Amino acid sequence: MTKVGIIGLGLIGTSLGLALKRTGIPGLEIVGTDKERDRPSKAQKAGAIDRSVTRLVEATEDADLVIIATPSAVVGDVMDTISHRLKEGCVVTDTGDSKKVVLAWAEQYLPRHVSFVGGHPMLGGNVNRAGGPQANLFQDRPYAILPGKTAREKDVKDLTDMIRLIGAKPYYMDVGEHDSFVSAVNHLPVLLSAALLGCTSKSPSWDDIAKIASDRYGSVTDSASSSVNAEDILRCDDGAIVHWIDAFIQELYAIRRLISDGGEDRQAVLDRLLSEALDNRIRWLNDLVTPESVARASALRERLPTASEGFMSLFIGERQARRLSGLNKDKGSKK
Amino acid sequence: MTKVGIIGLGLIGTSLGLALKRTGIPGLEIVGTDKERDRPSKAQKAGAIDRSVTRLVEATEDADLVIIATPSAVVGDVMDTISHRLKEGCVVTDTGDSKKVVLAWAEQYLPRHVSFVGGHPMLGGNVNRAGGPQANLFQDRPYAILPGKTAREKDVKDLTDMIRLIGAKPYYMDVGEHDSFVSAVNHLPVLLSAALLGCTSKSPSWDDIAKIASDRYGSVTDSASSSVNAEDILRCDDGAIVHWIDAFIQELYAIRRLISDGGEDRQAVLDRLLSEALDNRIRWLNDLVTPESVARASALRERLPTASEGFMSLFIGERQARRLSGLNKDKGSKK
Repeated sequence: MTKVGIIGLGLIGTSLGLALKRTGIPGLEIVGTDKERDRPSKAQKAGAIDRSVTRLVEATEDADLVIIATPSAVVGDVMDTISHRLKEGCVVTDTGDSKKVVLAWAEQYLPRHVSFVGGHPMLGGNVNRAGGPQANLFQDRPYAILPGKTAREKDVKDLTDMIRLIGAKPYYMDVGEHDSFVSAVNHLPVLLSAALLGCTSKSPSWDDIAKIASDRYGSVTDSASSSVNAEDILRCDDGAIVHWIDAFIQELYAIRRLISDGGEDRQAVLDRLLSEALDNRIRWLNDLVTPESVARASALRERLPTASEGFMSLFIGERQARRLSGLNKDKGSKK
Repeated sequence: MTKVGIIGLGLIGTSLGLALKRTGIPGLEIVGTDKERDRPSKAQKAGAIDRSVTRLVEATEDADLVIIATPSAVVGDVMDTISHRLKEGCVVTDTGDSKKVVLAWAEQYLPRHVSFVGGHPMLGGNVNRAGGPQANLFQDRPYAILPGKTAREKDVKDLTDMIRLIGAKPYYMDVGEHDSFVSAVNHLPVLLSAALLGCTSKSPSWDDIAKIASDRYGSVTDSASSSVNAEDILRCDDGAIVHWIDAFIQELYAIRRLISDGGEDRQAVLDRLLSEALDNRIRWLNDLVTPESVARASALRERLPTASEGFMSLFIGERQARRLSGLNKDKGSKK
C-alpha cells in the first residue's frame, strides 16, 4: 500500500489526484482534504481521491507522500499543523509558485525524518482553468523541482519519477531564479493591470474612456481579478519585482522615445517591434522557446506541412497560426 | 425603397446588416461587399444583406446610407473610390476608432452634396468576438457620433435615429477627446503587451521564464495578437499616446516606489491599490461607471438582491460577482 495525502483540492490538487489514479499504481490510496466543504466530495466523485477527511492530520498521518496544494500563503501553517504526525521517511511536496519562503518554512516546521521537495507544475499559456480538474493537466508540461536542503537524494528521485509518471517533464531550477521569474510572469502582470486601471480611471474623463474600452483593455486588465495579493508579491522577492518593473519601464520608455523623437522610419521600426512581440508570444504559446521544442515543431512541420496550420489554429487563432506557420518555414529554410 | 450599402462585412459590418434587417423597416434593401471573397455570401446566408456585389460603387450608387465598416486605414481609399458615384443627399458613415483622420479624409474626398457622419460603435469589455456577427451586438451599447463639418443637421439626426433603432445608445463626443481615449484603451494595451514580451524575452533566461509563464502572462500579452499596427497608433494621435504612456509609467512607478521605499504598511497600501484596481475593473465591465448606470444597477439590485450575483457570475466569474455584489451593497448602505 502507498498512501498519498492531498491537502487542497482545487484545480492542481484534484488534477494531481486524477493523474496519479490514472497511472494505475497498485495499492495506491489517496486521501484528500480541503477547507471548502464541497471540494472533497467533488474530488471523490471525480475519482481523484479514495477518501475525504476533515482534519489535515488525517490526510497526512501514515502517508508516504504529502502534497500541499494550497495557496502558498498558508503552506507554512499547514506544515506547522501536520509536522508532529508525519511518518518516518515521508516525502512532502507543495505546488505553489513562491519557493524561497516555502523552503524556509520547511526547514522551520518539518521534522528532520521527512524530506521536503518543493514542486511547481507549470500549466502554460493554453491552460483551460474553466475546464476544471483533469488527469492530463500536466501532460508534457514542465514541472519544476526544488529540493529542500536536507531532502534525501532518494526522495528527490522518487518525486521526480512520480512527476514523470503523470506525464509531466521534471526539471531542476535555482530557487532564486525561479522566484524572480515568477515575479516577472505572475506578479508583474498584476501590477500592469492595476497601473492601467489606475491611470485611466483617475482621468476626469473616465466615464467616456470606459465607454470606449473594449476587449483589448479587458485582456490587459484581466490580471486585476487574479487571486494574487500584496503578500504574494512581496513574499516572493521584492528585489526581483522591482528589477522587473524597471526592465518593463525601460522597454516601454524606449517605445515612447521612438514615437516622440523617432525619425521618418519610426512607423517601420514600431511595426517591426510589434511584429517581434507577436512572434515571441506565438513561440511562447507553442513552447517553441527552447531549442528542443523548436526542433520538435520543425519535425512536425515537415510531416504535416499544411495540416499543422489548421490544427494549431484551433488553439491559437487563425492569424497567429498563419504567422507561426511562416515562422517555422523561415526556420526550415535557414537550415 | 431605402438602399443601404455596407462596405466591409466583418463582425461590425455584418452585425449592422443583421441589426438593420431586424428593425423590419419596410422597403429596406441592403447591398454588401467585401474584398475577402467568402464574406459576402456568408453575410447573405446569415440574412445581413439582400445582395452582394463585387465592386464598391455597385454597393454605394443610389444608396441612401453608406456604411464603411472597413479597417480605418483604408477608409480614405474607399471614400476616394466611391465619391464620384454617390447620390445627392446620401449619408456616409464609418465604424472605425480613429476619427480625426477619417473626418479629414471625408472633407478631402467626399462631394459636398453628401453628409459624412462618423460613427463608432462601442462593443464593451464583454464582447464575444468568437460568437461571430449578431443582430444584438449593439444592444444597449454606446455608439459615438462624430459629424463632419459640413454634415446637414437632418442627416445627423437620421443616423442618430438609425443607431437608436438598432438598440444602441447614441451620444456625441469631441473628436480630439475621442481619439485620445482610443489611444488609452485600444493602443496603449498593445504597447504594454509588446513591452512585457520585450523585457521578458530579452532576458538571457527567457527559456526558463517562458516555462513558468501562464495565463496571467497570456492575458497581458494578448493584445500583441490584435490587428493594431504602428500606422493605427501613430495615425490616431501620437501626442495622445505619448501622454498615456507617461500617465501609465507614472502610475507604475508609484507602485515601484511603494514596494522599494514603502514603510511597514506598504503591504496594506499595495493591497488597497490592487483592490481599487479590481473594483474599477468590475465597475467598468458592468457599465457601472456613469452615474445613470450606477442608479440602474442599484435599482436592479433592489429587485433581485441575490439572483443578480448568480446571474452576473455567468459573465464575470464568481469572485468578481461576489465582489460587485459587495460594491453594490456599499453603495446602497451609503444612501
